[in-house]
Order: sequence, then C-alpha cells, then structure tokens
Amino acid sequence: MRAAFFAGPRSIEITDRPDPVIVSPTDAVVRVVLSCVCGSDLWYYRGESPHALGSIGHEFIGVVEQVGAEVSGVASGDFVVAPFTYCDGTCAHCRAGVTSQCVAGGSFGNHGIDGGQGEAVRVPLASSTLVLVPGSGHSDETMRSLLTLSDVMCAGHHAAVSAGVTRDSVVAVVGDGAVGLCAVIAARRLGAARIIALSRNPARQQIARSFGATDIIAERGDAATEAVLELTDGVGVDAAVECVGTAQSFATAFAVARPGSTVGFVGVPHGVEVPIDTMFARNIGLRGGSAPVRRYIPELLDDVLEGRIHPGRVFDFETNLDGVAEAYAAMDERRAIKSLVRVGTI
Amino acid sequence: MRAAFFAGPRSIEITDRPDPVIVSPTDAVVRVVLSCVCGSDLWYYRGESPHALGSIGHEFIGVVEQVGAEVSGVASGDFVVAPFTYCDGTCAHCRAGVTSQCVAGGSFGNHGIDGGQGEAVRVPLASSTLVLVPGSGHSDETMRSLLTLSDVMCAGHHAAVSAGVTRDSVVAVVGDGAVGLCAVIAARRLGAARIIALSRNPARQQIARSFGATDIIAERGDAATEAVLELTDGVGVDAAVECVGTAQSFATAFAVARPGSTVGFVGVPHGVEVPIDTMFARNIGLRGGSAPVRRYIPELLDDVLEGRIHPGRVFDFETNLDGVAEAYAAMDERRAIKSLVRVGTI
Repeated sequence: MRAAFFAGPRSIEITDRPDPVIVSPTDAVVRVVLSCVCGSDLWYYRGESPHALGSIGHEFIGVVEQVGAEVSGVASGDFVVAPFTYCDGTCAHCRAGVTSQCVAGGSFGNHGIDGGQGEAVRVPLASSTLVLVPGSGHSDETMRSLLTLSDVMCAGHHAAVSAGVTRDSVVAVVGDGAVGLCAVIAARRLGAARIIALSRNPARQQIARSFGATDIIAERGDAATEAVLELTDGVGVDAAVECVGTAQSFATAFAVARPGSTVGFVGVPHGVEVPIDTMFARNIGLRGGSAPVRRYIPELLDDVLEGRIHPGRVFDFETNLDGVAEAYAAMDERRAIKSLVRVGTI
Repeated sequence: MRAAFFAGPRSIEITDRPDPVIVSPTDAVVRVVLSCVCGSDLWYYRGESPHALGSIGHEFIGVVEQVGAEVSGVASGDFVVAPFTYCDGTCAHCRAGVTSQCVAGGSFGNHGIDGGQGEAVRVPLASSTLVLVPGSGHSDETMRSLLTLSDVMCAGHHAAVSAGVTRDSVVAVVGDGAVGLCAVIAARRLGAARIIALSRNPARQQIARSFGATDIIAERGDAATEAVLELTDGVGVDAAVECVGTAQSFATAFAVARPGSTVGFVGVPHGVEVPIDTMFARNIGLRGGSAPVRRYIPELLDDVLEGRIHPGRVFDFETNLDGVAEAYAAMDERRAIKSLVRVGTI
C-alpha cells in the first residue's frame, strides 16, 4: 500500500509499505477513506517534538476490510470511525472513561502501528476501538464531520468538558485552530450562554461565529485579557478553554478565568510553566490532556449524523495522498486551518 | 488589648495594641475566646514567605462585643466563628461561592487588619463574614472543633472537594499535618470508601485512623508511590489530596493519582513545579487553593455541633497568649500538630 512516511522534520514522503494484515485475532484491517493532518503532527513536522521515522497520522475513517477471529461488533464492509488511540475497553482506565490511557492501548502512526495517512491500517483491539457508523450514502459534508470525530472534535469537546462548561456558562476559547473551533461547537452544545472566541483571523472568526461564538476578541496577550475582562464586567469567564499549548495561550487562559473556575486544556504543552501561585491565590483549576476520544465518539456521532453540528467545516484545504506534504505545509504556514486527505471511496 | 506581634522570622511577641473599635458601620468587634497557629503561619515564622511586621494569626472564635449600625444577623453577645477571610457576600465571586476572592475582602492578621492571635479583633463586613453558633454551654471538645472551622477543617474539606472526592472514592491524603488530618475527615464525610493516609508519625497515624483513614503508608517519595499503587492494583487513587505545598508532596500526589483524576491542593505552594506533561499525558487535573471558608462553615458547623466530626482533635498542644511564641515553636519543631491558644472565656 501507499502511505505517508515521516522522514524527518519538514519531510513527509509517500512510500510503498507492506499491506497491513491481521496479526492478532483481535485486529481488524481498515481501508482508509478520509484522513487528515493534526495540529499535533506539526510539532513533529517542525522538529519541536521527536517522532520516529516511519508511519504518521492518527485520524481516519474507513471501511473494514478484514477482521480477526475474535473481533465482534464490526465486520468486513462496515464503515467506521477510528479514535486516534486504540483501547481494550475493559481495563480500569477504560472503564473509568479514560480510554486514552488504556493499559493495552497505543496510538496510530507510532511505535510500529500504521498511521492514518495511508491506504490501510491494522487496527489492534478492533472490537473496543472502532465505532460503527450507521446508515449509508452519507453526504461529503457529513463524511468530513465524521472524520473530525477521530480526534479534533472530541479534543475540543474534552477541552470544554474539562473546563466545566455547562448550561449558561460564559466561556472563552483561546486558540482559533481546528481544536479551538471545535471547542466552540462543544461549548455551545453543552449549553454555554456566551462563547468568546479569541481570533484575529477573519476567516476563522467567521467559522467561530457559525459554530456559536457570540463574541470575537481579535487582540492578543494582555490586550486580549483586558478585552475579555471588559466583556465580563471584570469578573472573568466561568470556563477558559485552552486549545494551543503555548506559554502565551496558557497565560491568557489563566488571566481570563474567573476565581473558582477551571482552565480546560488540550493543546500539547510546549514551554508552558503553570502559574501555581495564581492557581492557589485565585482558586483556578487546570484539567484536560490527551482526549479520551473513544468515550466521546458515540454521543457526538449522533449529533453529526443528525446534522446538529458541522465540525467538518474546519477543513479548508484538501488533497490526496500524493499531496500529503503540501497538506502539512499549508497548515504549517497557516494557509489552512486543517488539511483533509482523500484516500479512498466508501 | 494584648495581641501577638510578628517582629520578624522566629520572633513572635505579645504586645499591647489599641483596643479595636468600630470604624465602619459594617464592622463588628469580636472578643477572642480561642485562637490557634496555622501551618501557613510557619512559612512566615521560618522566613520563607514575607509578612509585614505587626498583627498575625487568622483563626479565631469569640463573642461579639459591639456591632456597627449596619450590621445585621449578629449582635452583641453572640458566639461566632470567623472565617480567616472577611467578605461582602454579594460580589460576583462571593455569589459563586469563592468567598476567599471577595472583591471587598481581605484576611485577618494582614494589611492593618487585626490578627486572630489577640484579645479582640475588628471584623469588617461582619454580617456576611461571621457565622453565628447556635446553642450554649458547648463542651471544650466542641469548642476546639468549632475553632477548626475558621480555617483548617474547611481547608481539608476544600482539598477533598477540589480533588473530586465522592461516594465510594479511593482517596490518598498526602500530608499528616492538621489540614491533611482534616482532609481525612472530609473524605470520609463525602463518602470515600477507602482513605489512604501518608504519615510516618505514629501519633498522627492514630489520629488519621480515628478520623477514618483505612490505610496508612509510612513510606515517603517513590516508596510511598509504590505502596499506594500496590494498594490500588497499580491503578492509582480516584482522588489525590495534597495538604503540604512542597515539591515532594506535589510529586507524590501526581504519582499516585489515577488517569482522569484530580489532585486537590490546599498547601501554599513553595518551590512547586507543576508537571504539565504528566497532566497532559495522564489526564490528571489540579484544583484547589485558598479555601472559601465562609461558604463551607454552615454545612460543617452542623456536623461539629451534632458530634459527627471531631476536627478539634488535631490540637495536641495548648497555651495562652503569653505562650504564643512557644505555640509556634512547638509546631515548627513538629512537637505539635497544631497549637491551640486560649485567650478568653465565652
């Protein structure tokens, strides 16, 4: 099969790789239909986080081609969403809903596991990992939204849930990348009364508004903090959602969070120093991390299939496998919010 | 009046100070019956945190001597508990339950406000700050427990609440000081099924057990972590409660917290670096800070008055105002868990 290969920073190649086969009776092989590039892939692309040479990409939806003898719940021909980590569904962490920490789990595109940016993927622990998509003949818009359930929409949801967004919350979303935009959807879905999106990019502002943002702050740093405090009568927001992972975005999230609230974070932290003294003095919590995507997919799936949410609109660049390098470059250069990679047909 | 005076590190003197008077119509003057020394006072005593020369101490119960024209709800002769911060009860933070962050608030023993370690205290915003204790003729044991509502019992409760302790939780309490011991009471009160107290001091272990600890870990550092993991089948605890504030205690709390759980912290952080990468990878949250004591007193007051909890047992040293310096020294040298200072009679 053909698949993306991480050959070092700024070097993503398409290479021939062995076709995945069933290795364990709990495996499935999935033929990829749609894949994409994650903001976290950019840390590797830019050389800011290490990544082994080899397979890359962890977001995909596709069609089950083959299942091992012990796989139940999904069968050959089924259309499925794959969460970016696989999990056994039975360990203590899975039972507690933290599927991203499964003791038998791992992530796609790492440690010898196929990446999602390729024609096919061997999926370990398929019964408890893959989520069957009911129905058929889904529109391209629905397909794009289904793909976001693999990671980015669930990450935005995790940020909002971790920040404690609930009915009538006043929320600030720091970060106008795909995760931040999905966090706007999530906040609205959870009933937030007011959603303040921090973005200085007109196209992203527009998407944020279409997703439910009620206010846009175009400033950055201290000016952004002041603007949010002004909007909230000096109080700050009930929930601050951090979707970038930089020192500045964390600082802004803590600065706009009202006392007693929680910063929900899903951006992979890079160079972040947590302001523990501020957390103590102002009673501000911090929660989040790598999203337990498998846990969230079922509830979000219904909303996608019934057209209540449209997270697929974060894809504003598309290509095929031959264009994967360009898919990375477009995001790296902020020409694209998120790059879709069309691999096969359903 | 006579009151303790912070004259610099390791120098607590008893001096004559002006008798408090009503300055604002919302003030009350309270004659102190019982006071005590807080673990956080030791940071000043040891010179590890700055403190202005002057009044000190922030925990007291006493009898209202005089009220300003605008005070309602408490009157001369009433027996009251004072939370360690005063608050207006009406600002956005108070309404949200974060009374420790009141925009008009402040703490006793700081910034020109009388300390609790003295014969009398001017209490600003008395109507919304002081909590009336119903009944009369309370036993000395009850009186000691009422005093803990001023800070330490509420701090332990805040740690447990912040860590998300709930019915059937498995909890680890890091720290066997007065706050840690009160956190054991709080965890049990919130319905924890198992409470693992980390303590290597036999006397404190015994109090922890009497407060509801089901397991005692006498090890420290990595050995303590291993012991907790062994007790929890390698999973970790549902809620980790940090009641010290040092780098080691934070590290232990994060190491024993299971993925998806939260570290609740109330120890004033000193030299703590928050392990943000661990928080991300393992989805461990951090919440807590300066306890909103005024919010918690009413619910805990009933439990004290009805004899369901006995937090006053943390006082294992007692003296009077003349012995305040020794009260600090006993705690500093770990001869005492917490020092009671008898100031007046009810």
